[in-house]
Amino acid sequence: MPISANNTNRKSWINVPEDSDFPIQNIPFGVFITKDDVITIGTRIGNSAIDMGALQQLNYFEGIELTDDMFTQDTLNDFISDGKKTWRLVRNRLAELFDETNPELQDNKEHREIIIFDIKDVEMQLPVLIGDFTDFYSNKNHATNIGKMFRETEDALLPNWLHIPLGYHGRSSSIIPSGVPVHRPMGQTLPKGETTPVFGTSRSVDFELETAFITTDTNIMGENIPVTETEDYIFGMVLMNDWSARDIQKWEFEPLGPFLAKNFATSISPWIITLDALEPFRTKGPKQDPAPFPYLQQKGKHNFDINLEVAIQPEEAVETIVTQSNCKHMYWSMSQQLAHHTSNGCRVNSGDMMGSGTISGPTPDSFGSMLELTWGGKNPIKLNDGTERKFLNDGDTVIMRGYCKNNEIRIGFGEVSSKLLPPFVRK
Amino acid sequence: MPISANNTNRKSWINVPEDSDFPIQNIPFGVFITKDDVITIGTRIGNSAIDMGALQQLNYFEGIELTDDMFTQDTLNDFISDGKKTWRLVRNRLAELFDETNPELQDNKEHREIIIFDIKDVEMQLPVLIGDFTDFYSNKNHATNIGKMFRETEDALLPNWLHIPLGYHGRSSSIIPSGVPVHRPMGQTLPKGETTPVFGTSRSVDFELETAFITTDTNIMGENIPVTETEDYIFGMVLMNDWSARDIQKWEFEPLGPFLAKNFATSISPWIITLDALEPFRTKGPKQDPAPFPYLQQKGKHNFDINLEVAIQPEEAVETIVTQSNCKHMYWSMSQQLAHHTSNGCRVNSGDMMGSGTISGPTPDSFGSMLELTWGGKNPIKLNDGTERKFLNDGDTVIMRGYCKNNEIRIGFGEVSSKLLPPFVRK
Repeated sequence: MPISANNTNRKSWINVPEDSDFPIQNIPFGVFITKDDVITIGTRIGNSAIDMGALQQLNYFEGIELTDDMFTQDTLNDFISDGKKTWRLVRNRLAELFDETNPELQDNKEHREIIIFDIKDVEMQLPVLIGDFTDFYSNKNHATNIGKMFRETEDALLPNWLHIPLGYHGRSSSIIPSGVPVHRPMGQTLPKGETTPVFGTSRSVDFELETAFITTDTNIMGENIPVTETEDYIFGMVLMNDWSARDIQKWEFEPLGPFLAKNFATSISPWIITLDALEPFRTKGPKQDPAPFPYLQQKGKHNFDINLEVAIQPEEAVETIVTQSNCKHMYWSMSQQLAHHTSNGCRVNSGDMMGSGTISGPTPDSFGSMLELTWGGKNPIKLNDGTERKFLNDGDTVIMRGYCKNNEIRIGFGEVSSKLLPPFVRK
Repeated sequence: MPISANNTNRKSWINVPEDSDFPIQNIPFGVFITKDDVITIGTRIGNSAIDMGALQQLNYFEGIELTDDMFTQDTLNDFISDGKKTWRLVRNRLAELFDETNPELQDNKEHREIIIFDIKDVEMQLPVLIGDFTDFYSNKNHATNIGKMFRETEDALLPNWLHIPLGYHGRSSSIIPSGVPVHRPMGQTLPKGETTPVFGTSRSVDFELETAFITTDTNIMGENIPVTETEDYIFGMVLMNDWSARDIQKWEFEPLGPFLAKNFATSISPWIITLDALEPFRTKGPKQDPAPFPYLQQKGKHNFDINLEVAIQPEEAVETIVTQSNCKHMYWSMSQQLAHHTSNGCRVNSGDMMGSGTISGPTPDSFGSMLELTWGGKNPIKLNDGTERKFLNDGDTVIMRGYCKNNEIRIGFGEVSSKLLPPFVRK
């Protein structure tokens, strides 16, 4: 089925500001609460939030096979479960409906008023009920940097890394949408040079710049998904800040991996950008040497050229962009991650989320975490307000942005922004 | 509120075979499908499955504040979310209703016929929708044994182990109830003495003997649960077989912990035994030295004396009990696990499951996995049919059982039983 929604010649009758992340060629999916306190599935064009629940109730999706309450639900899981054909039909229909040449809704003031909201007047929610959350570790620069610092060896990349898209299970209950603040965690840490740990406030709270993809669910327990079919199981992508407490991580991570150092919070951007919308931005990944096992081998372009940046904004100060990276630096592609994840028969459900791992570029100004940018706190970052950071301060807001751009079109993710609060104190 | 359901003098008008795991003092909770294809929440006395959805519809819970559809649902999550007071009211009411002195239902043949089924005629389901699954590593014998074998050092217990109830996140989507078979997984392994891995069938599929507890959900993200309050958040326990592929585990586990080696399947027993029912079997845990941090310190008895055993039954052969252990060997208690898990503010939801980690006793015949029982395959186990096992064979059924017993009463878990099938082959 052609992805007519991607037609770059199309213009919308909804105003789209220049350099908006959300032209009519994007058509992301999300969940929001309107000013009338109604929760609905929706999309976004420019700075307008579009209530797809209302659209469905007013029969604007006639001709597409959908359950009656498909878009009045509070998660996208059922829609995602319907599969790629339905996603395309709906996205194509939305593009057609908001095309400047289409008078259908454009000329119906009454309908417009109950369907279209200013983005400032809606409250974005988590777009899916995330059953299982996996975080991969698929960026070679990051894995090498972390190896050097955590294991204190120059032989930083472990022997399995070049063969396995390594990953671990994260905590679904701690995933929050952009805008929800995060408390600095308490935890056990081992002070440098000591042999006895202490319990207290983490002193090295960090961000991790990641993307994540959301899956659909037609594999059965025991069955793998062949690498050539994996992209049919990927609905779309979001930006992800995998909050990390480095001091807790260093003391707890052996031998079972990160746990409390990570599961206090994971923030995601609220709009899921479909893989279809990202189609024009496919690119080849880094050369893989040694050659992966056959179950991980793929031809063609399976990485995506997505510009990424992170800004830190202290309280009552301007922001400072502290790093700029790109999703194309992933060594293992999303396809390879998903093929590996199911190679043992692990079941994948609609609404599962899989993170990329920190995406660090090759140069020190493109690293994806403060741990790497400051090299373990040795080289503090200078912010525009004159202050310095080794790690994050209470009151700092971390803002991540991502977008794709070519000569014709810009497709963006918006942002994931979250403020670090002081530790929770029991009253 | 008194736990009148625990009255050991009570007898039921439902027949309870001698040495049954399910006397009227147990009253576990589960979910099953009846022979009429209705899914319902229920309990069990002796070999009778009791349809609590039907009981509620026939007003047998009058006087207890419950939503109308509380027990006609297909998971226990909402009931668990109602909290300890409601659990006790319902359990007490069930004990009273099935007390031999109570004619209410006993004398109502019509009602009995739509409420009570032979256990053989119902199909047990997963009792809860498990949002997040955490597996701890809280048995010192097991952690020491694994350390010796995986890290090949006598200095087996890592320095953090005696300070932290270590754990990691598991995969919820792969949790299955007793009776569902499991395919032998495929995966990458590193043959001994080689530097290049191979991809193929796991040759060392193992069980892990564990218990797990199911939580309720009143903590808020950012807030911890004090160790003194944790037991209010524990609904009950199940038996758990944490299937493991040791060869995959050894090659993949550094630095992020177990992933594909574990997430192909985790089997649990279908009846949740409430913490209330286990009350008479509280016992002290092992002495903890060094003293835990204050956030992990507790007085009194917080371990449970639960006898555990594992049997292997080859196809068309008798079973062999291969190990006998006890839940009291846990170094870190469930209370300490939950206090630690939330010490950083991690949110816990109703229906989350937390595994104990393999429960190995102190002697070689009480170890909780084949890896330990055979010491990495060096000392094969002899089965009653004359065959030997280093690890599991295709066609082997692994059966785990657990029960508490004192002079007055036996409270049991029934069993978790699951057959290992050959690898999945795509048609």
